[in-house]
Amino acid sequence: MPTLADVGRVAGVSRGTVSNVFNHPDLVRADVHQRVKAAARQLGYDGPDPRGRVLRDGKFNAIGFLPPGAYAIADVIRSPYGRELVLGVSIACDAAGATLSLINGRDETRNSSIREALVDGFILGHSADIDLITSAQRRRLPFVILESDAGPDVNSIRIDGRSGALAAVRHLAALGHRRFAILSIRRTSGPPIIHIPGSGKSAITAGFQLDHERLVGFAQGLAEINLSINDVPIIETTPGEPSAGAVVFDRVPQATAILTMSDWQAITVLDEAIRRGINIPEHLSVVGFDGTAESARTTPPLTTVAQDIAGKGRLAADMVFANAAPKQIVMPVELVVRGSTARPRR
Amino acid sequence: MPTLADVGRVAGVSRGTVSNVFNHPDLVRADVHQRVKAAARQLGYDGPDPRGRVLRDGKFNAIGFLPPGAYAIADVIRSPYGRELVLGVSIACDAAGATLSLINGRDETRNSSIREALVDGFILGHSADIDLITSAQRRRLPFVILESDAGPDVNSIRIDGRSGALAAVRHLAALGHRRFAILSIRRTSGPPIIHIPGSGKSAITAGFQLDHERLVGFAQGLAEINLSINDVPIIETTPGEPSAGAVVFDRVPQATAILTMSDWQAITVLDEAIRRGINIPEHLSVVGFDGTAESARTTPPLTTVAQDIAGKGRLAADMVFANAAPKQIVMPVELVVRGSTARPRR
Repeated sequence: MPTLADVGRVAGVSRGTVSNVFNHPDLVRADVHQRVKAAARQLGYDGPDPRGRVLRDGKFNAIGFLPPGAYAIADVIRSPYGRELVLGVSIACDAAGATLSLINGRDETRNSSIREALVDGFILGHSADIDLITSAQRRRLPFVILESDAGPDVNSIRIDGRSGALAAVRHLAALGHRRFAILSIRRTSGPPIIHIPGSGKSAITAGFQLDHERLVGFAQGLAEINLSINDVPIIETTPGEPSAGAVVFDRVPQATAILTMSDWQAITVLDEAIRRGINIPEHLSVVGFDGTAESARTTPPLTTVAQDIAGKGRLAADMVFANAAPKQIVMPVELVVRGSTARPRR
Repeated sequence: MPTLADVGRVAGVSRGTVSNVFNHPDLVRADVHQRVKAAARQLGYDGPDPRGRVLRDGKFNAIGFLPPGAYAIADVIRSPYGRELVLGVSIACDAAGATLSLINGRDETRNSSIREALVDGFILGHSADIDLITSAQRRRLPFVILESDAGPDVNSIRIDGRSGALAAVRHLAALGHRRFAILSIRRTSGPPIIHIPGSGKSAITAGFQLDHERLVGFAQGLAEINLSINDVPIIETTPGEPSAGAVVFDRVPQATAILTMSDWQAITVLDEAIRRGINIPEHLSVVGFDGTAESARTTPPLTTVAQDIAGKGRLAADMVFANAAPKQIVMPVELVVRGSTARPRR
């Protein structure tokens, strides 16, 4: 295998000059550049081993993205929210000429993934445990957490989920709805968990901070019309769970309005309605959450609480690249009224 | 900053033992493991610098994905085909516990990206130029090219695009269509380029091997019904180009059937038809290409030439991980008839 030294010998220049031709070509005179490149071609040498560069520069020119929760890489790509987040991060990486490293977020691997990732900084989809933040801090690399608040010393970006959830309830209440059901996000794998009021004490399995915020917003909206969230059926489903729609129609048929925490959940309900020949919104109103691009193209188009998902991803990446003093940013959401909500059926 | 040696001193073990605790924990006795971890916690040491590991092991535990053509990372995520490809690669990476590095494919950066990427192997979306393959070969890392044939010494996976294109024409011909227009893929950035037969000599701008194959398939199907592809209007558009639909309705209004090379192109035509109140397929038949998940959910559902996009991505990644003797694989396609094709209008 030809080495950098071999090329230098053939070209009649120092190893440092050969290295510059590949790593800092702007520092090298044109005729020297030609001579070195000719020698390299002659020897079949294609540049310094990137491992060497890693030790020298300390820069990997890459950003690591750790998915929300315990998602694997494929889960992020499957999720409409996940891939819009990645789209935003990608746009910033493209502008910076950096590589985007998608890291598996599954519990058993993610702490070592953070320790070992060959990146210049991290975006943590959200962090439910302090170990993750600690590992990231120990790398002494810039990082940003999404949808969590980890205090004033940690970069974070979250949305005002509580206000969004409140707006969703107010919209449905103004239309006249009084019989609700809520789809909350199940953060462990498994089938839907159904909490029917009055059927025994069952606590909602622990969600993340962002889930809790949205429940608080729902509860506030319900309280404004003298309803208690404790009297509302809550169905925990993982977004993308295909049976979520069937659970809504079979287990809470009395509901006239469905509040959700994810467009993906809401779209699953719309799809099931189509399958059963049930008209949305005439029979049932449905409100999504996130404002993914596909929420505008569903049948009917989905009323939803919209956030700038790609913008959040882009901002997170830019904050990593900027590596400035920690900031905590709260982004607004807005209710976008489309075609999936109407007055309740008689 | 505490070092590996410091931890060894505090724990009373060698540096090699400390290293094993972090890199090969299965080799270390439980009590030793505890002692070392306690010493590390005490000193605030979180593991060996990953840069050191890189030099030692030579394994990055990552696979690099270079997008098709001159796409940037964001372009891959935006493209329905691109993200299904990435989904397949992700599934294989998750199974292998590897990181997925999305690399910017834009012309000016991609050769150096291949030289410098800290990965164990590459998937090249497709390779239109020999430099890319040469750079990949010089890294002496396993790689797979998609949708190109680079000979018996290079791993490649492509689909039988010619057969698929032929099947699309046969389907439309059997329905009675004789007036066609073709949307081909423009591989340079810019607005649609319209080639109207008889309006002067204009050559189709150079496409990739896979584009040429599909044109050959279209031409064969047209020849079977005594039509020459030279008499068919061809519109080159980049998939996702929003004006493609308008170009079809405004510039080739006489066509009763549209052949495309990408579901994304076809869906743009469907969207424009909805905007103009034009009924597909009664007024115009449209056939897509790729069989993306969203092609099944359009209005109307899209007839298309389907391939197993995610399967292709997964197979490519598995071939990189296997690092076996080069193989050239051709995957089948099949025409999936849905709701966007019908007999021609009168």
